[in-house]
Amino acid sequence: MENEALRTMMNHRSIRKYKEEKLEEEKIEKIVKAGRQAPFVSQMCSVIMEKDDENIPFEAPVLFTICVDIHKLKKIMDDRDWKVVTNDLTLLLFGIQDAAYLAQNMVIAAESMGLGTCYLGSPVRTAKNLKEKYELPDKVFPLVQLVVGYPAEDPPLRPRYPLDFLLFEEEYPDFSDEEVEAAMEKMDHGFLDEDYYRKLDAMISLKGAEEDDFTYEDYSWTEHISRKWGQWYEDLESQKEILGACGFHICEDED
Amino acid sequence: MENEALRTMMNHRSIRKYKEEKLEEEKIEKIVKAGRQAPFVSQMCSVIMEKDDENIPFEAPVLFTICVDIHKLKKIMDDRDWKVVTNDLTLLLFGIQDAAYLAQNMVIAAESMGLGTCYLGSPVRTAKNLKEKYELPDKVFPLVQLVVGYPAEDPPLRPRYPLDFLLFEEEYPDFSDEEVEAAMEKMDHGFLDEDYYRKLDAMISLKGAEEDDFTYEDYSWTEHISRKWGQWYEDLESQKEILGACGFHICEDED
Repeated sequence: MENEALRTMMNHRSIRKYKEEKLEEEKIEKIVKAGRQAPFVSQMCSVIMEKDDENIPFEAPVLFTICVDIHKLKKIMDDRDWKVVTNDLTLLLFGIQDAAYLAQNMVIAAESMGLGTCYLGSPVRTAKNLKEKYELPDKVFPLVQLVVGYPAEDPPLRPRYPLDFLLFEEEYPDFSDEEVEAAMEKMDHGFLDEDYYRKLDAMISLKGAEEDDFTYEDYSWTEHISRKWGQWYEDLESQKEILGACGFHICEDED
Repeated sequence: MENEALRTMMNHRSIRKYKEEKLEEEKIEKIVKAGRQAPFVSQMCSVIMEKDDENIPFEAPVLFTICVDIHKLKKIMDDRDWKVVTNDLTLLLFGIQDAAYLAQNMVIAAESMGLGTCYLGSPVRTAKNLKEKYELPDKVFPLVQLVVGYPAEDPPLRPRYPLDFLLFEEEYPDFSDEEVEAAMEKMDHGFLDEDYYRKLDAMISLKGAEEDDFTYEDYSWTEHISRKWGQWYEDLESQKEILGACGFHICEDED
């Protein structure tokens, strides 16, 4: 029952160091075709590719930007004399799924061929810059970026929640403090074992604090996510504005 | 360069007929563990499983409901004396990615073991019912459902957009009418070749029309998506309300 697809997925690590080696056209095509074959709602997505640009993160040879795309849907419906009436929020909730399923197939395709990948989540916040850079039309939202290349590092597997903190049968449970803490411990120990945050020098600083009791000896995943979601992106208006600039009006219908 | 992972993905078809055969615990565990190993932003997702219930669509043996989950994040941050300050919209844009990457790994894991799968997109609109059914706490949004089982049909591959209507280099193109129509034709012919909509009896009727010029002889994908996004889910308020009922306040900060 073990097979290469399972092994590829179980062996996933994000790769942040790449060889200079270029990525063959043939492999790029296989990656995108595997992405394209993912299940879809209405193929509401597009992929922009950049190659061999020195600004690609981690000096990877290829950078994909995976977008939610309602522009193509509109083009097709125009051709049939139809108008999209679905509200932008519902379109977004389905379109993100189209984009994400495609993106994840691309990850697995690349890794199955011995390549490394790393998602970049930044587009959710920097979409306006990408819109300008790639001349994205209205109703195209860049959801996530993906670098792909030949790996120049071989990091250990990173931890995940215990299975009983992820999968629930029949109904959602009430967690005991012990269950929550067991999940936290597994995550924190796993990242500390690798010295993950020190290697990335990724400690998030405490806003307005003069002192920080944490060092890379004890700073790990649960502290990291607490500092992130406990300090970042408080302002709802800015996120609405980013979506709005890409043509997604999720709070009021567009006039 | 061909390998089993690529073949699994390239061979994907949604399966809507299942054998009575139950799904072994061992396979279920492999599927969820493969899902768990997907890349993540902050593991903001959970999976609810139902087994051997006669109400599962297509009489499949297992139904997974994959949820965006900020409840667990809050529990962990509570334990560390932190409070989530990030706005719900940004959380949702990242959390949907966590849920979707996990879901797509589950699809590939299942299919790599010879199982069939089919996503059900309905939770985006029926989330409130699922919240009640599974006793989901506040800040858990059921994004998508997935049935898995032993396939009792072997349909052909379904069409996808031409590669040059999906992948763009350096910048987003201006489509010519010919390019749009080539994409439409590929989709429509592909589904007509299988007699897809007739077999599913899935024609969407025209609202308020007394006559419909289409029959299953010519009704295909672009007409289907036009009738869907040209007639359904116009009301933005109802989608906001569904998210709000699950604890995601994406237009105004919660008081």
